[in-house]
Formats: sequence, structure tokens, C-alpha cells
Amino acid sequence: MSKGFAVPLDVPKSEQDTYLKNLKTITHDSGRLMLFAGDQKIEHLNDDFYGDGIHQDDNDPEHLFRIAAKSKIGCFATQLGLIAKYGADYPKIPYLIKINSKTHLVPTAQHEPFSNLINTIEQVVAFRKCSKLNILGIGYTIYLGSEYESAMLSAAAQAIFEAHQNGLVTVLWIYPRGKAVGNEKDPHLIAGAAGVAACLGSDFVKVNPPKAEGASSAELIKEATLAAGRTKVVCAGGSSVDGSTFLTQLWEQIHIGGCSGNATGRNIHQKPLDEAVRMCNAIYAITVDGASVEDAVKIYHG
Amino acid sequence: MSKGFAVPLDVPKSEQDTYLKNLKTITHDSGRLMLFAGDQKIEHLNDDFYGDGIHQDDNDPEHLFRIAAKSKIGCFATQLGLIAKYGADYPKIPYLIKINSKTHLVPTAQHEPFSNLINTIEQVVAFRKCSKLNILGIGYTIYLGSEYESAMLSAAAQAIFEAHQNGLVTVLWIYPRGKAVGNEKDPHLIAGAAGVAACLGSDFVKVNPPKAEGASSAELIKEATLAAGRTKVVCAGGSSVDGSTFLTQLWEQIHIGGCSGNATGRNIHQKPLDEAVRMCNAIYAITVDGASVEDAVKIYHG
Amino acid sequence: MSKGFAVPLDVPKSEQDTYLKNLKTITHDSGRLMLFAGDQKIEHLNDDFYGDGIHQDDNDPEHLFRIAAKSKIGCFATQLGLIAKYGADYPKIPYLIKINSKTHLVPTAQHEPFSNLINTIEQVVAFRKCSKLNILGIGYTIYLGSEYESAMLSAAAQAIFEAHQNGLVTVLWIYPRGKAVGNEKDPHLIAGAAGVAACLGSDFVKVNPPKAEGASSAELIKEATLAAGRTKVVCAGGSSVDGSTFLTQLWEQIHIGGCSGNATGRNIHQKPLDEAVRMCNAIYAITVDGASVEDAVKIYHG
Amino acid sequence: MSKGFAVPLDVPKSEQDTYLKNLKTITHDSGRLMLFAGDQKIEHLNDDFYGDGIHQDDNDPEHLFRIAAKSKIGCFATQLGLIAKYGADYPKIPYLIKINSKTHLVPTAQHEPFSNLINTIEQVVAFRKCSKLNILGIGYTIYLGSEYESAMLSAAAQAIFEAHQNGLVTVLWIYPRGKAVGNEKDPHLIAGAAGVAACLGSDFVKVNPPKAEGASSAELIKEATLAAGRTKVVCAGGSSVDGSTFLTQLWEQIHIGGCSGNATGRNIHQKPLDEAVRMCNAIYAITVDGASVEDAVKIYHG
Amino acid sequence: MSKGFAVPLDVPKSEQDTYLKNLKTITHDSGRLMLFAGDQKIEHLNDDFYGDGIHQDDNDPEHLFRIAAKSKIGCFATQLGLIAKYGADYPKIPYLIKINSKTHLVPTAQHEPFSNLINTIEQVVAFRKCSKLNILGIGYTIYLGSEYESAMLSAAAQAIFEAHQNGLVTVLWIYPRGKAVGNEKDPHLIAGAAGVAACLGSDFVKVNPPKAEGASSAELIKEATLAAGRTKVVCAGGSSVDGSTFLTQLWEQIHIGGCSGNATGRNIHQKPLDEAVRMCNAIYAITVDGASVEDAVKIYHG
Repeated sequence: MSKGFAVPLDVPKSEQDTYLKNLKTITHDSGRLMLFAGDQKIEHLNDDFYGDGIHQDDNDPEHLFRIAAKSKIGCFATQLGLIAKYGADYPKIPYLIKINSKTHLVPTAQHEPFSNLINTIEQVVAFRKCSKLNILGIGYTIYLGSEYESAMLSAAAQAIFEAHQNGLVTVLWIYPRGKAVGNEKDPHLIAGAAGVAACLGSDFVKVNPPKAEGASSAELIKEATLAAGRTKVVCAGGSSVDGSTFLTQLWEQIHIGGCSGNATGRNIHQKPLDEAVRMCNAIYAITVDGASVEDAVKIYHG
Repeated sequence: MSKGFAVPLDVPKSEQDTYLKNLKTITHDSGRLMLFAGDQKIEHLNDDFYGDGIHQDDNDPEHLFRIAAKSKIGCFATQLGLIAKYGADYPKIPYLIKINSKTHLVPTAQHEPFSNLINTIEQVVAFRKCSKLNILGIGYTIYLGSEYESAMLSAAAQAIFEAHQNGLVTVLWIYPRGKAVGNEKDPHLIAGAAGVAACLGSDFVKVNPPKAEGASSAELIKEATLAAGRTKVVCAGGSSVDGSTFLTQLWEQIHIGGCSGNATGRNIHQKPLDEAVRMCNAIYAITVDGASVEDAVKIYHG
Repeated sequence: MSKGFAVPLDVPKSEQDTYLKNLKTITHDSGRLMLFAGDQKIEHLNDDFYGDGIHQDDNDPEHLFRIAAKSKIGCFATQLGLIAKYGADYPKIPYLIKINSKTHLVPTAQHEPFSNLINTIEQVVAFRKCSKLNILGIGYTIYLGSEYESAMLSAAAQAIFEAHQNGLVTVLWIYPRGKAVGNEKDPHLIAGAAGVAACLGSDFVKVNPPKAEGASSAELIKEATLAAGRTKVVCAGGSSVDGSTFLTQLWEQIHIGGCSGNATGRNIHQKPLDEAVRMCNAIYAITVDGASVEDAVKIYHG
Repeated sequence: MSKGFAVPLDVPKSEQDTYLKNLKTITHDSGRLMLFAGDQKIEHLNDDFYGDGIHQDDNDPEHLFRIAAKSKIGCFATQLGLIAKYGADYPKIPYLIKINSKTHLVPTAQHEPFSNLINTIEQVVAFRKCSKLNILGIGYTIYLGSEYESAMLSAAAQAIFEAHQNGLVTVLWIYPRGKAVGNEKDPHLIAGAAGVAACLGSDFVKVNPPKAEGASSAELIKEATLAAGRTKVVCAGGSSVDGSTFLTQLWEQIHIGGCSGNATGRNIHQKPLDEAVRMCNAIYAITVDGASVEDAVKIYHG
Repeated sequence: MSKGFAVPLDVPKSEQDTYLKNLKTITHDSGRLMLFAGDQKIEHLNDDFYGDGIHQDDNDPEHLFRIAAKSKIGCFATQLGLIAKYGADYPKIPYLIKINSKTHLVPTAQHEPFSNLINTIEQVVAFRKCSKLNILGIGYTIYLGSEYESAMLSAAAQAIFEAHQNGLVTVLWIYPRGKAVGNEKDPHLIAGAAGVAACLGSDFVKVNPPKAEGASSAELIKEATLAAGRTKVVCAGGSSVDGSTFLTQLWEQIHIGGCSGNATGRNIHQKPLDEAVRMCNAIYAITVDGASVEDAVKIYHG
């Protein structure tokens, strides 16, 4: 059995080997996940890929694949369609398919957030077979507290059940959002989000780092990592630009906050290829190899 | 035939033995149900599990399973996903799967309450087979009087029919709620809710204890337990914190009000493990063994 | 061929015998229908079953079955779930399953009326087989003029087609209701409702008795009974409490208004068992046996 | 090949003979269609069938069948359910099934118009087989410019494809309607509606006669009959009561406006049987036999 | 492998030859697409086909087919229904089926834009087989930033996956539109739209030419053609009426902006047949043959 994981009972006997292999691959048997997030071309349109402070490499979608292919990562998460276009040239990347997405064009004040399924698990499974790629899992975003929460809770539960039935690992992104949500970063609310993921049976849940006056985020996230139980919490280091601070935060999330990894996008792909690869490897060192911040910073600086 | 129950005619011949076995197990052949409710991690997020007056054990989802495994209960009700994660370590617990859920984030004044199906009966049945767990029944919540009542009445009726077709016992949670509902605790309205459960053919219905000036709740619930006919009414003891008062209310609901058991969550799991177990056993003694309040209080106090 | 009825052409050859048998049974070969309506536990919650002027027997759902079993009736109409619970003890009752229902909690001014399908015809047919009960037909309510009219017209047409494909008799309840409806009792509008039932191919349609200044309801309903063509119109006697007046109205609806029977609920089940049975038999005498009002009143008074 | 028609390529080889036979029957091999419209019992409730200036025969739905059976017509269009009730006695009528319908109760200002599918093509095909009736085609209404336009465009396209796949002829009724529509009779807008029918691949489209200051309707409709291309335009003669004027308009629509027939309801069925039959025959003479107005008026006057 | 294209991995092995053949045909093996857009009869009703400055030929839908048959084009894009009516006479045209459409009647301020699927991929594939026509691909329009964006993103992703599963080439039309969209022509927003197409795995995406003060559109579109990666961007030359200016813009879009072709409708079909053919051929010369503007203008002028 993979370190720190039990095979959930909605994985049928015939798929247990596949599931365990996927889990071992995605965590490098460490029980922790380094997820390279590359689904923002829909979520944030071109804002994350072109503009001030973003290296010009990043405006080519292939940049993401080049990074994923050359770095140590747990998985590269993006949409099925993009993988279909580049996968033949990058057959060794461990992929995770993000099955729902929305843009940021419509503001919450105009219309409550809803991220619709764009590919079914049936299609993911067909694609896994037909592409022969290394498709390890799926990801789904829930906006908790949105008036469309009911649709997303349902779709997420369905997706997790079907994914497990097919031996796929699951990651939920859960963000409290909508008119009804006062403080999206409230630690208690984020712990609630983590508990929802546990009830839905997801293997991992990605939440935003909590914030509160006079407390470190790593301390604050403890409530969530406990509330999530056997569902593992992954987190991002926030919007810090300084690599060293960023890596320190990741280390603290794991070793203080009890997180089981991280999901990082912009802090990787907005850099030129070589620096992006080194950032991946630094994150990986902390997450999977148990490296110190000092060692990781060395890796990042090459 | 199990005490006090006829096999409903929507249970096909091939599933009658399974249904009766499930019913006997869930009621310990007493005709009464002690339901340990553990679906609140979605319904109330982390509010019921972490904070003042809640024991720290309760922030770990496994706390629920530990209680359920060590206590005398009729069934432990929670979401499929959570059971999938812990069931392998708790194979003897009698489970009931709550198939719909919502959070409490969006207030009724903003958006009428709607609790969406998160797992289908087909998935529950597949899970029962694939997990080999003791899945005895399913639960579904209806917000009567919500503008989404039509969707929930339909889904509940479908779920009950399909559950019975597969030998599963059914429990409805029915709460009048929405702009159109003046007094959620009105005894006549709660009796109406119980009658709806009867028309939908549910085996059990969980309602809130009614309230009215100058009358005991146990007296007031009689209208509902009669209106429900062969559908058995279960109830909770309200928000009392004092164990003795709580157990007295349960006893009165059964012996005065005609209830057939109870559904209890916070009054159990917010306590440390040992006390929680004793509370379960005390409730069980009243519900299933016909114990007096005095005896039950002794059990609770150990 | 049953008196006054042609077999509709959407009944396939293989189901024609079943359909004719159902029709003969439900009309006692008279071409007229005495429908005992017992679906109000959802429609009106407990208001029709408990309170001033209602006999205490009526708060037990079994009251309905006792009446239906001891009286002469065409059919007893209620929800599938309730029949599933009591049917084994009342195997000889001729049943009609009401496949959609709503409560009266949400007022029309807040939300346009919509009664959602709670059981599919496929489920009714499966239940007929699995229960071995005498399931003769199905009923569906349309709120004509509601903003959800389109959904209900569609569901009704589908249900009728599928019911006929399976040899089941169909009854529509059509009530004009919603912001757009000025006068729900307008004779011309009720005739329109009857015509809609004809276009949907229903065997029977239940409408409310029309009202207009200076005209008897029985005269006014003629437009509807003509407009309905081969779809038979059934009607209730209104809210009169006096048995004699009530029976006079029924007689006039048939012999003056051209109705083919009646659908009666509260005027039967709110009485104690013995009186309720006599009321059924009195209604039956007028509807099916062609009795005079005088004879029927004698039956009612025992 | 039937005059003026190519077999559309969405008719599979196996159904081409059926399609051509249906087309020949419905047009009497003239390339033109005389459609007797009898779907108004839902569309206009009893307003078109009972009241001042309407013959009393018209309040019996069988009136429509009597006319259709005794007259020369291309097809009689009405709902499946009504045909199911009368078809056995009128087996030779050429039928066209109107598969969607709404009432006129809810005004456009309250709720944008939406006419929902009431029978699927699958049901029409099953009915054709099971009834052995002469079911030649299907009809569907689109309210162009309604906020529900998207649902109706989609359903219409689906219905046409499936109808053609089963050898059935298709007729669209397209009416611009809704808040966004300024002038429903605008010639350019009606031409647009005709073009939509062409893009959806319908065999016929029924539009209302356009109106504009200082131009004859027959001249104005030319833009539409050209824009429709191989989709044939049929039209009604407006609300004129005088038979001679009505027939003159029909003649002009064909010989000046380029129409391929007409769809007429009230101008036929509101008359007593004998006169209604003569009106049908007069319309038929102009439409199918190429008669002059003078000859047609003679037929109408007997 | 076709020039400039990899076979996406959602094309199964059995369909790879078909896909490559379709791609070679549609691009004439140039890697660039000349798409003749003829779907406006629904999108713009008759406004694009009849009126001042539009040749009278254009009011006959067959005009589109005549142009497509006599010109050099990559493909002719229009609705399935229209192709079904004319395809038998124009069997050699390379077709692309536009599977969703809406009219322009309802303004964005009244109702957010939504273009609904009118034909499924399953129907397209059935039609390809049954018509034996040259169906090379499918097209779908997304209004990014509409409140219905979620429905269209989902439908587009589904359509692309299913199209590729059947060897069909895909083209998305993506237009930012709705209350939330400030400037539909913003270059950065259009680059975002192109990136969305990449994530959905489309082969081509049609966007509007961007605009900004003090910059040429061809320069501005570079961000989009880079952001689209392996999804090829096609564009239109705007609303210029002068042929020479129009062709200059197309050339610049390709050779400066990095576009892979164009989608042109009104600038072709509003002209008389002979001129329309010459315009097609001129566009084709630039797009596929790599001709200079000068040469193309010569072709246009005959």
C-alpha cells in the first residue's frame, strides 16, 4: 500500500492495482503531492501568461509541457484538449485532467460562480486508453457558498466515484466564493471546505492558504488538515514573488500545518524555462524528498 | 417479519430477505431506530466539529467512526465518500448513506434551500457490492416549502423506489424551510411533513421536535406520529446540553409522542470518545432496549 | 368494447385486453368513474386530515385504505409510496397512482405552481408487476396558465402515451392557476382545460365545477363536457358539507352537465369510517348505478 | 421524385420511398400543401371553438375529424393524443402530428413564449406503427426572438433530423415573438424566419402574412419565399371572414407571392360541417389543382 | 502528417487516417484554412442576404452553394439542414457543419448571449454516412464572458472530443460578449479567447480582429496566435468594402500576425456569383497558395 494512503472502498478490486500505481506515481511514494497547475489559460485567460513580469516563453502553451517534461513533479494538471494537442510529444509527463473550468470574466457580483464539467470521466477514461498517456487522475473545482454549490457538489461527488471506479486519483479545488461568503480566507471556513472534500471522498483537496490577524498561515491551516482526515490537503504559497519566501512557506505548510504537498502554477510557469524547472525541482525537494528550505533554495538558484 | 414493519410492495420478491435483514439489523428487531447522524461536515462545515465546547477529538473525521464502532447504534449515517475512506478499517459498522447534502453558507433569504443528490442509488448499490460493507439504507433531506420542493420531492420518491427495489431501508429528513414557511416548528406543519414521508413510502422520517406555547413537545408530536402511519417517525432531543434532560426528552418522544427512535449527531460526537460512546449506549438503551430514563442516565454516566 | 369507450390507438395490440379490462374495472362497465381521491396528504399536508370538523380516524393514513376496501368505488387514487406500505393488507382495492404532487406551502404569488413527476410510468409498471396489486391507471395534475405549464403539458403527454403503451387508464387533473389566470372557475376557461385533456389523449379529466353569476354549475359545465369529446369529464361537488346537497350536485353534473363521474376526497375521508363508506356507496349509486338523488341519500343515511 | 422536391440527404436510403410517398400524399404530387390546422384546442383553448360567430358543431373535437375525412386536404395537423382517440374511426385521413404546443394564457409581457415538446419523434414513429394510421409528417412551432429561442431552435433541428431519418415530412410554424420583437409582421423579419427554416432543413415553413404600409401582403411575402429556397413557404389568409376575399388572398400568396400552399384552421372549422367541407375543397382547388379564385368561390358556395 | 499539424491524441487510431485526410482536404495540405462562412441565415436572419448593397442573387440560399462549388475554398460552413436540402446537387463541396446557432433578435442587454447546440456530433456522423457528402469538420460558437459561458464551454469541449473521436476537424468561433465584457476587440482578451480554444483542443479558432489605438490589427493579433499554440487562429478582414484593402488585411494577418487563414462570409456572398467566385479565389490564393496581395487583387478583378 502506498505510504499514508488506504485504497478507498469505491475503487473496485479490478482497479486497485491501477489506483495504487497511480497514487505511487503521483506522490513518488512519499504520500505527498507536488501538483504543477496549468489550467489557468481558461481560468485567467491570458492574464497569467502575457504581460509585465511574465517571461515571454509563457505565452506559448508548450512552455507548460516543456517545464513538466524536464522537472521533477507529481503531476501536471491541465485540460484534456490541451493534452491531446501536445501529449504525443510529451508522453512521459504524469498528467492530471482538470475536468471543469470557467473564465474570470463574469464577476461574482453579477453572477454567482459556477464551473461546469467540460469533460466526463467516461471521456477521460476513453482518452487514457486512446492516447496511451500517463493519465493518473482528475481535478474538479467547487465554489462553496455559491448559489450553484448544489450543482458542483453533485458533479464532484459523481466524478470522484466514477474516477475511483476507474482507478484514477482525485483532487478537488475548493474555494468558498459568492455573495454569501464574507471572508474567503477564514481559517474555520477553509477547514470546512477541507471537511467537505473528506465527505466527498477525494484523495486530495487544494485550498487557499488561510489568513487571520496575528497568526501564521501554516498554524492556521492545521484546523483544515485535521478536519480533512484521510483526504490530503495541498496548498499554494500565496502570491509572493521572492523564491526563498515562497519555499519557506511551502515548507511550513507541510511541517507546521500538516499539509501533504502543494499546487503551484504562476510561481513556476511565469519564469523562463530554466528557472521554472529549477523552481519545480526546489518545490519537489521540499514536498517529496523532505529537503530543508536551505537545500531547496540552493536547487532553485541552481 | 420484523417487529412493527410490513415489507413494502415496492421491494421485489428477490430483495425481500435483504430488506428484512437490513430492517432487523438497523432496528435490532425492536421496530425502533437509533440513528447516529454524521453528515454535518457538509451540512454545517466545521462549525459542529471545532470550537468552544467541542472536544478536540471531533475535528478528526475518524472520531465518528471510532464512536460508531464502539457503541450500540442502529446505524451511522454519513456520505458515501467518507465511508469509502474509512470503511476498510471499520467493516462492522452498520452504515446508512446520506445521498444528498448542502452547506449552510447560502442563507434562505438569499436563495431558497435545495439539497442536491450527490450519489445515485445505483452508485450506492455498486458501492455496497464493491466495498462489501454493511450498507443498510439511504437517507435524503427534503426542504418542504422551498421553491425547490418540487425537485426534492421527485428525487426523494425516485430514491425510495430504487432503494426498495434493491432491498435498502430508507430514511427521509424533512424540514419545512423557505420564505413561505412561517414557523418551522409548528406541530401541524410537522405532522404534514410526516404525512408526506408516508406518501413517498419511506420507512422512517426524521423531523424536528415541534414547539408551541404551553404544550410539551412529546405531546405535540403525536399528531405527526399518527399522520405518518406505517412510516416511523424519529426525532432529536433538541439542543439541550444536559445529558439527563436530553435522555428524558428522548424517552418522552417514544413513550408519550409515539416516536420510533431518534437521530442524534452533535449531542454525541462533540464529546470525547469515551463519553460519546456512553451517550450512544444510553440512547440505545432507551430506544431499543426500552430502558427507563434513570437506567439510561446511569449508562451515560458510566 | 367497454361502454362509451374506444380503445385509443396509442394502446398497442398486445395491451388492448389489459386496457379494456382496466377500463371496465374502473368504470364497472358503466362508462362512468367514481374516483376516491386520497392524494391530499402531499397536496394539503395535514390540513385535510386533522382539525375541526374532521373525524379523528382521518389522521391515520390507513383510514383511506379501510374506506376504499369496504366501499363501492371505481378507483382509489393516491401516491405509489403509500400504496406500497398498505397494499399487502388491501390487495383488492382498485388503485390509480397519482404520479405528480406538490404541497400548498408556496403561494402562487411567490412562485408559479409546478407539480413535478414523482414516479415515472416505468416505475408504475414495475410496481404493478412486483406488487401484484390491481393498478388500473395513473393520474397527473396540470396547472394551466402557470409559467411552468410547458413542463407539465410535456410531462402529461409523455405519461399518457407511456401509460397507454402499458395498458393503463389515464386521468388528468387540470386546474387553471397562476398570475396569468384571472378566474379559475370561469366556465369557458374550464372548457378550454377539458379540450387540452382531449388533445393530450387522456381517458378522463378532472376539472373544478365552474361558477358564474346566475347560472347553475351543472349547466355551465356542459361547454366543457362537449369540448372534451371522447375524453370523459369528472368533477367534484364543491365544498358543500351537507350530504344531500352534495349528492344532488353530483347527479346534476352527470344528468344535466354531461359529466362521466366524479372525483371526491374530503367529502368522504373526513367522516368516520362507517359514514365515509356510506357516502362512497351513495356516490357510487348515482355515478355507476344510475340511482336517483333520493335513493342515494337513503344509502348515505344508511 | 415528387414535383418540386428533392429528397433531403438526412433521409436514409431505407426511408426514401416512405418519405417520397409521404410527400406525394401530402401534396397530392403538386408540390403544394393544403394543411388543415387543428391544434388550436391547446393553443387557443376553447376560444376558437365556442362563442359568437362559431358554429356549435365546432365545440365537439370530432368536428375536426369529420371535416378532414370528407374534404380534400393535404393533411390534418393536430396533437397525437387527439388522433389516438378518434383515429380508429377516421383511418383514411392524412395526419400530421403537431409535436409541441402551449396555451395563450400566459402573456408575452409576463413570460417569454416557449412551446415545449409534448411528444418525441420516437413516440410519433411508435404511434405510426401501432396505430397503422396514415402519419405523414410532424409539425413544430418556434417563437423566434423569444428568450427561449435557443431551446426551440435546438428542439426543432433535432425533430427535423429525426423525422427525416424516419421518412416523415416536416413543417415548421415560425412566429417572431417576445419583448425583443418590435413588429411581428415585418416582411424582412418574416423572410428571416423563412431562412431559419431553410437552415434547419424543414420541408415546409408556415409564416404569418407580412404587412407594411402601401404594399400587398402577397408582394411582401416574395422576399420570404425566395429566402426559404427549397423549403416551401405556406401561409394563412389572415383573419378575413368573407370567403371570397380569403380565397383571393390565398391565390395571390401562391401566384404572386410564391407560396407553396397554406395552413388554415379557424376559417374552416368554425363553420358548420357542410360549409367547412366546401371551404376545404375550395382552398384545395386553388392550392393543389391550380384553380382560379372564381372557380374556388363556386366550390365554396356549393 | 499534414503540414503544421499533429494528430491530436483524442483521435483514436481507427480514425487517424480519416482525420488526416480531412485536415489535408480542408487546408489543401497548406496548414492554412480558407473557410467560407455561410451560417448567417440564422445568425443575422435575412439582414446579410437582402437589402441595400447586397446583390439580389444572395437572397436565394443556393447562391452560397453555387459559390462554394465554383470557387477554391477550404470548406463551406453552414447548418446541417441546409446542406441536407442542397447537398445532392453539390456533392463535391467540402463541408463543415456549424452545430450551434442563434439569431441576433434578442439584444445582449435583455438576455445574455447563448447559442445552443442544434445538431449533435452523433447526428453529424450519421449524416456524413447517410449523405455520403464530404463532411470534413464541425464548428461551434462560444460567447466568452456571457452568463451562459459555462454551458457553451462544456458543449464545445464535448463536441470537440466527440468530433475527434470520429475523425472530424474542429473550428471554434469565440467572441467575448455580455454585460461583463467591456471591449470585445481588446487584443489581450482575444488572446485569452485563443488560449481557451487551445485548452479545449480545437484545431482552429476563429476570432475577430483585435483593435487598439495606434497599432495595426495584424500586429495586435500576434499575442493571440502565440497564445493559441497548436490551435490555429483564423480571422476575418473586418467590414471593409474595398476588395484590395480587404485582401491586404488578410495577407497581413497571415504574414505579420501569424494567422493560419481566415473565415469570410459577407465579403463573399453579398456579391454576384461571378465576383463572389473571384473573391473566394483571391482569398484562397493568399491563404493557401501564398500569393501576394497584388496577385490576389488581380485574381479578384479577373
